[in-house]
Amino acid sequence: MRDQYYEQLDVIVDELVLITDRVRTAVADATTALLDTDIATAEAVIGSDRGIEEAIDEVEERALVLLATQQPVATDLRQLVSTLRMVADLQRMSALAVHVSKIARRRAPEAAVPLPVQPLIRDMARVAHSMIGSAARIVSERDLGAAAELEIEDDEMDRLRQELFRVLLDGTWEHGVDTAIDLALLGRYYERIGDHAVSMARRVVYLVTGELPVA
Amino acid sequence: MRDQYYEQLDVIVDELVLITDRVRTAVADATTALLDTDIATAEAVIGSDRGIEEAIDEVEERALVLLATQQPVATDLRQLVSTLRMVADLQRMSALAVHVSKIARRRAPEAAVPLPVQPLIRDMARVAHSMIGSAARIVSERDLGAAAELEIEDDEMDRLRQELFRVLLDGTWEHGVDTAIDLALLGRYYERIGDHAVSMARRVVYLVTGELPVA
Repeated sequence: MRDQYYEQLDVIVDELVLITDRVRTAVADATTALLDTDIATAEAVIGSDRGIEEAIDEVEERALVLLATQQPVATDLRQLVSTLRMVADLQRMSALAVHVSKIARRRAPEAAVPLPVQPLIRDMARVAHSMIGSAARIVSERDLGAAAELEIEDDEMDRLRQELFRVLLDGTWEHGVDTAIDLALLGRYYERIGDHAVSMARRVVYLVTGELPVA
Repeated sequence: MRDQYYEQLDVIVDELVLITDRVRTAVADATTALLDTDIATAEAVIGSDRGIEEAIDEVEERALVLLATQQPVATDLRQLVSTLRMVADLQRMSALAVHVSKIARRRAPEAAVPLPVQPLIRDMARVAHSMIGSAARIVSERDLGAAAELEIEDDEMDRLRQELFRVLLDGTWEHGVDTAIDLALLGRYYERIGDHAVSMARRVVYLVTGELPVA
């Protein structure tokens, strides 16, 4: 009975990691769509959200069935409940990749991101991508070292977003209000993607140490 | 045993409704802080987030204990798991009220929202406030009529956000890029508050009908 439980739990964790990888790809593709003004890729990301949603529903269903049939207690229970919170994070990250793609699509054939700001957005996307990778590693291997690393990446993300605002607001902006608004929202989207990666990691830390890290 | 279960579940639902009311007040206060440039109220909202977080942790803990000790199945299990997803929505709504308050605080003593846009932001805040109220009613009374109403309010929120973008981007904007960015973010924050209210309602609809409404 217990063996069966852990087998099922492993399946759920494996699926969570697979979905995390899909979300990571979606974020990378959304960034390509954005920086290369690549509408086909933007459409692909927007279309892929549905499949990710379905995979998420499946994991959620699987976790509920396991809860009902095996009735775990203590740490086992917490772990299963954590997976339910993590799927909510993944759902949001996928939706945020869609938001990024929609900005790319709306602005095409013009570039949504003016050339001088491209390195900054590329950096934010790179950090977000790396944070999702860290989150996947933490979920699959319970690697608390990666959790500490993730907090450092989160600080880097904060710094980049502040830098973005500095550029938008230093009085020399010459790309229009519409572009400034898109960039402010893009900054927010990448920051939120990172936040959700941190949230997933904190759930694992909580499971392992029994304590929620201070937010 | 079962009676005790439903008693405990009622306590959890009551607490969820209380927290939803606190979040609703936080959103209303944040809007006051924003539109009246009232720093004391902004600080109060920012300070109140901690207490809401603690209340949320308590409900979550209570739900976990109930899961562990009573090991509900089927609909009872789904309901308890739903409460865990709803606390995540409440957590985000409270954080979004803090974001609104921080924009008010950062811009003080200047107004973050120029006079001509105040009615629009006031409308978004009013709709968000009403949506949280509907969500509370749905959670406490399982009133599916209120769920349908909430979807209409959600459409109204979409319309208001589009109107806000139209105003920001019609080429006659004369309040600077910084103000435009703040307004775009404020629009996003109120819209997300509404989204979370809808998400809470959909969880209840799912519980009652067994089907997730199409997103």
